[in-house]
Amino acid sequence: MTRLAVTEKIISTKVSKGLSWADVAKKVGQSKEWTTALCLGQMTATPAQAKVLGKIFGLSAEEQKWLMVVPYKGSLPTSVPTDPLIYRFYELVNVYGTTFKELIHEEFGDGIMSAIDFKMDLQRQADPNGDRVNIVMSGKFLPYKQY
Amino acid sequence: MTRLAVTEKIISTKVSKGLSWADVAKKVGQSKEWTTALCLGQMTATPAQAKVLGKIFGLSAEEQKWLMVVPYKGSLPTSVPTDPLIYRFYELVNVYGTTFKELIHEEFGDGIMSAIDFKMDLQRQADPNGDRVNIVMSGKFLPYKQY
Amino acid sequence: MTRLAVTEKIISTKVSKGLSWADVAKKVGQSKEWTTALCLGQMTATPAQAKVLGKIFGLSAEEQKWLMVVPYKGSLPTSVPTDPLIYRFYELVNVYGTTFKELIHEEFGDGIMSAIDFKMDLQRQADPNGDRVNIVMSGKFLPYKQY
Amino acid sequence: MTRLAVTEKIISTKVSKGLSWADVAKKVGQSKEWTTALCLGQMTATPAQAKVLGKIFGLSAEEQKWLMVVPYKGSLPTSVPTDPLIYRFYELVNVYGTTFKELIHEEFGDGIMSAIDFKMDLQRQADPNGDRVNIVMSGKFLPYKQY
Amino acid sequence: MTRLAVTEKIISTKVSKGLSWADVAKKVGQSKEWTTALCLGQMTATPAQAKVLGKIFGLSAEEQKWLMVVPYKGSLPTSVPTDPLIYRFYELVNVYGTTFKELIHEEFGDGIMSAIDFKMDLQRQADPNGDRVNIVMSGKFLPYKQY
Amino acid sequence: MTRLAVTEKIISTKVSKGLSWADVAKKVGQSKEWTTALCLGQMTATPAQAKVLGKIFGLSAEEQKWLMVVPYKGSLPTSVPTDPLIYRFYELVNVYGTTFKELIHEEFGDGIMSAIDFKMDLQRQADPNGDRVNIVMSGKFLPYKQY
Amino acid sequence: MTRLAVTEKIISTKVSKGLSWADVAKKVGQSKEWTTALCLGQMTATPAQAKVLGKIFGLSAEEQKWLMVVPYKGSLPTSVPTDPLIYRFYELVNVYGTTFKELIHEEFGDGIMSAIDFKMDLQRQADPNGDRVNIVMSGKFLPYKQY
Amino acid sequence: MTRLAVTEKIISTKVSKGLSWADVAKKVGQSKEWTTALCLGQMTATPAQAKVLGKIFGLSAEEQKWLMVVPYKGSLPTSVPTDPLIYRFYELVNVYGTTFKELIHEEFGDGIMSAIDFKMDLQRQADPNGDRVNIVMSGKFLPYKQY
Amino acid sequence: MTRLAVTEKIISTKVSKGLSWADVAKKVGQSKEWTTALCLGQMTATPAQAKVLGKIFGLSAEEQKWLMVVPYKGSLPTSVPTDPLIYRFYELVNVYGTTFKELIHEEFGDGIMSAIDFKMDLQRQADPNGDRVNIVMSGKFLPYKQY
Amino acid sequence: MTRLAVTEKIISTKVSKGLSWADVAKKVGQSKEWTTALCLGQMTATPAQAKVLGKIFGLSAEEQKWLMVVPYKGSLPTSVPTDPLIYRFYELVNVYGTTFKELIHEEFGDGIMSAIDFKMDLQRQADPNGDRVNIVMSGKFLPYKQY
Repeated sequence: MTRLAVTEKIISTKVSKGLSWADVAKKVGQSKEWTTALCLGQMTATPAQAKVLGKIFGLSAEEQKWLMVVPYKGSLPTSVPTDPLIYRFYELVNVYGTTFKELIHEEFGDGIMSAIDFKMDLQRQADPNGDRVNIVMSGKFLPYKQY
Repeated sequence: MTRLAVTEKIISTKVSKGLSWADVAKKVGQSKEWTTALCLGQMTATPAQAKVLGKIFGLSAEEQKWLMVVPYKGSLPTSVPTDPLIYRFYELVNVYGTTFKELIHEEFGDGIMSAIDFKMDLQRQADPNGDRVNIVMSGKFLPYKQY
Repeated sequence: MTRLAVTEKIISTKVSKGLSWADVAKKVGQSKEWTTALCLGQMTATPAQAKVLGKIFGLSAEEQKWLMVVPYKGSLPTSVPTDPLIYRFYELVNVYGTTFKELIHEEFGDGIMSAIDFKMDLQRQADPNGDRVNIVMSGKFLPYKQY
Repeated sequence: MTRLAVTEKIISTKVSKGLSWADVAKKVGQSKEWTTALCLGQMTATPAQAKVLGKIFGLSAEEQKWLMVVPYKGSLPTSVPTDPLIYRFYELVNVYGTTFKELIHEEFGDGIMSAIDFKMDLQRQADPNGDRVNIVMSGKFLPYKQY
Repeated sequence: MTRLAVTEKIISTKVSKGLSWADVAKKVGQSKEWTTALCLGQMTATPAQAKVLGKIFGLSAEEQKWLMVVPYKGSLPTSVPTDPLIYRFYELVNVYGTTFKELIHEEFGDGIMSAIDFKMDLQRQADPNGDRVNIVMSGKFLPYKQY
Repeated sequence: MTRLAVTEKIISTKVSKGLSWADVAKKVGQSKEWTTALCLGQMTATPAQAKVLGKIFGLSAEEQKWLMVVPYKGSLPTSVPTDPLIYRFYELVNVYGTTFKELIHEEFGDGIMSAIDFKMDLQRQADPNGDRVNIVMSGKFLPYKQY
Repeated sequence: MTRLAVTEKIISTKVSKGLSWADVAKKVGQSKEWTTALCLGQMTATPAQAKVLGKIFGLSAEEQKWLMVVPYKGSLPTSVPTDPLIYRFYELVNVYGTTFKELIHEEFGDGIMSAIDFKMDLQRQADPNGDRVNIVMSGKFLPYKQY
Repeated sequence: MTRLAVTEKIISTKVSKGLSWADVAKKVGQSKEWTTALCLGQMTATPAQAKVLGKIFGLSAEEQKWLMVVPYKGSLPTSVPTDPLIYRFYELVNVYGTTFKELIHEEFGDGIMSAIDFKMDLQRQADPNGDRVNIVMSGKFLPYKQY
Repeated sequence: MTRLAVTEKIISTKVSKGLSWADVAKKVGQSKEWTTALCLGQMTATPAQAKVLGKIFGLSAEEQKWLMVVPYKGSLPTSVPTDPLIYRFYELVNVYGTTFKELIHEEFGDGIMSAIDFKMDLQRQADPNGDRVNIVMSGKFLPYKQY
Repeated sequence: MTRLAVTEKIISTKVSKGLSWADVAKKVGQSKEWTTALCLGQMTATPAQAKVLGKIFGLSAEEQKWLMVVPYKGSLPTSVPTDPLIYRFYELVNVYGTTFKELIHEEFGDGIMSAIDFKMDLQRQADPNGDRVNIVMSGKFLPYKQY
């Protein structure tokens, strides 16, 4: 058994039962962003969370254990994503990558925005010209230190 | 002459004069995010903006014209960025890519978040455990339509 | 179960039953272009469309549900396609890519032709020197906006 | 001297003189699509055309000769284009590639749409919901023959 | 079922029955070059040819149908082939690629040698210094046309 | 100085003087195929040949010496060629690669067609349906031997 | 059935029976280098050799036939090998590649060392500072000829 | 100044003066294999050797210093070499890579043949069927140790 | 059976039994670093060690034999790792690679740090600002020798 | 001017003046590891440090300013390094990557070892069997948090 097998079972069950990530997240008691990443094989569950997910998706005790194992992360099959929705995020990194770099360094000095001590919130933003996707990202700034 | 040559002159002048992107943006009259992307060769200036930048960075009339030409976009030298700050954004796409996809489709149906009708705002967020980088992204949702 | 499995079943059934995409499209009530892309795992069906396809291709209720799930898009096994018919389109992007860019920018300014708010029509064009493939593409122009 | 050097001079002169491809094409006496591709180093000029372009862009006799040499074609710096406008065309190949293949084979049998005996026309299409880019492609169908 | 499965069955049966491509081609009534490419999943059979191959290789009615479906072409697992025999052909393209280009353009002008309206013949050429492989390729010249 | 510099000078001079490869080959006294490959930096000249080429292209004594140095071979800038004429040859390797392999092994057993003890002849073949490119390749068969 | 399946069975049986390649080679009657390459799916057996191997590894008549089929060669899963032992050989090509080239050309002129008319012998070389791997390679020199 | 510049000067001077690596090696007092690798920018010279090379190739004091700096090794422009002579060595790694691995492990256990504590000797081997390239490689075996 | 299958069984059993690598290592009698690499398919066991692991993970006699076979090493699915923890080590090579090179050469001259005669120790280092990962690597210096 | 130009001047001056990184570091007042990375274009200097380096390497005021600009990090020309010394570190990531992952997660849970809040120390370790390179790495553990 592998984590991938558990992920595929979760996705498959979600389709056949018609569940929503938002509902799953409420039952897990965490944000929909983190919970979805967990279910898609990118994060690690506590025993209590694994139990909740086990109930929702009909997972065996062994499958629940795999949710508690730290997974090999990376959710995409190619280094440049082919899916148009995901590619747009890759494109933002490509077009705005050096802009992110300049502005974060201008404000904070040499260092990075953590992708580990990180959280985000994704919401629909009503707009008369067509609703918008609104994403708020927050990552701790980690400075390079001299030694 | 090429746009790249103008970009390099802008960056070089910024270092030697000790300018900040925030100040440049104020004079241009747009956000620091868009203005930095413009100066780094990713966006297109109006004649008035080109003139302002020409004054700030000592650009000739011809160099200003290049700022008004739509550039070949893409600011990174490799498809997987090596710079740690920029890589973290790539990593977010890798780890959260399928999560972005699931949650946007759950909320909006099939389609994408536009990377063109898009804006963002990057701010320092004070935090007793270490200040954070806060990025708000807003992109119009574009639905796939049947035909 | 995965969308890929449903796609493979559709293709396999099409071969064994000797169906045509044009006929399938008529029953679905959409263009042959969009309907084929749907059947090949690139678009998302409404419940009514899934039911029609279920009947044509003998799909179970669960298989029909997968047609209503937004797929991970991208229909080619390699980033440069090896199939000669598909490669010719890739070649057009390679040879005419900068021409597309120059002419669209000349007419519309900075922005892109949407590949989402997009439709196309592919027809045989009779010609005494050998019939031709005629493709009409129509995509909304999306301007980059300053902010 | 190389064709690339001539291409760069043409682009540079176009920016400094503020020319449009449509005007250049009129003087050359061919479509704007073919003429732009010629100027961008993808097509081959007749002596008369080279002379016209030489006048427009101030090219020397030797530079004009290079316009008459068949170029090494391919206008993009990477196999997956980073520029958003050009990427959208690559995305169409990715998402619709197998659809092109199925529909052309359904109509014509085994073979390809020629990218050589090919022409296209790109126009603005007025639309109350936002103007559209309209591209009509026409390529001769070339059948695989048995031997 | 897929075309690949049919190809694998053909190859497997050829080994166990000890058949030769030359004999298969005679029964199919086409050249050994085209027939081998057909059996290896690169060309498309007529119903009569599929029936002949079905008899030779013990293919079911459904497997025969797959021989009549236009395949996704490309017979190699990597973009640079590892097999020494096939690599030598790739090496010829690498070493002589620009020579092909110069000589064909010198003789015909701008255009290509078709790989579709194409045939070839491969023969043993007796030679006292060691027999030689003799390959005659014939492809229609397709000129780029101005428009 | 490098061989590449000599190659570029030869190409540049050929354009400005309007020479043909066929004429150059006649003066060198070898086939147009080998002579073109030599001029394009893929083969090695004898002192006499270098002198002839030096006269034709106005090469200095040192430049002539470089023609006698064995070059680092490989004439293409990318592993999958972008130029349509050269790509067609790559496509032939892709589509017919396994066919070459099967037929040569069927005739000769395990081994390869040499790309070193190799020659070829490229001719125009008149054809009422459009003239054809005719290429005859001849390479010595080299058997793998057991030891 | 495929050659790969036969290779895997040979390797698996070798492990479970605790055989050595040297012993297998003695029974086959060829060098351990060639015999190992044969067993690993890179060379082609005679009927007599296939029978011997069939006995050693318990191969069926059909599996023995596959040993007599010329395999698609190339034994490594990636173009740059990850295994440290094999990588060292790749590193030698990288570091000494141009040295091989210079010295072989200096001694023999333009041409190559054949990898087909090739044999090698690998031995332990006792050494007080630590035993050494000693490899003797012998490949026929093949000259490029003018034509 | 860089090591690459010194390497290019050495190669250029060797061509114009018509030197041989064997002669250079004799003057340096080391093998022709190691000396050639040194001159091609892969090894590091002692001050005395740098002086000798300085004299042979007319190198300035600063250029001689660069010969004493440990270079960034790797002499090939692509990860799969395009030059036929060098490719044959890459092919040997590809075809015989797993054979090297099996036989060295069979003789020595887990470990590698060092590419650092390594030497080689390349000689012409007279042969009535055509002379052969004979290469003797000797590398220390380095065992993996448990800890 | 393959080593990979044994590795997967070990990992799977570890999850279902809730074992720790530290405990496994104690029973094997080696460091946790080496023992984990062994269990993950990168090192080779002695018969005694294979027996111990067989007991812990319920491996059959044949599975234990595979632990004693030298594996094809390399534990990552892509050449640039996607997993954030492992990527950080890749990033260290990218950012500090030339620094490693300069400092080791400055101290030892031309040569390398062995990755074979190598050991390491990974410990938690308590720290009031957040505990740290402490890794001590020790590899024998191997000098390039002249010959 | 660019940071790369400053880096090249530093390296060039170091060679011509015969400086050592250890001495440079002492004058800068930081470790030799961090200081070398700074000089090689991977870290950012304070004004005081830039002044010290300016004196050592004869840098102009503008060149010193570039040392204070955060650089685009990544010191290697290819994603898999060709230099043997640096490759060994890449090999360690390849062979031990999953071991690092398992042991850090076993000790700390889900998270990473920071490559930003990181320091290291590289020393010669005397050893009768040959001196060793000893590297101590210390990076803060950063846990993934739920949100």
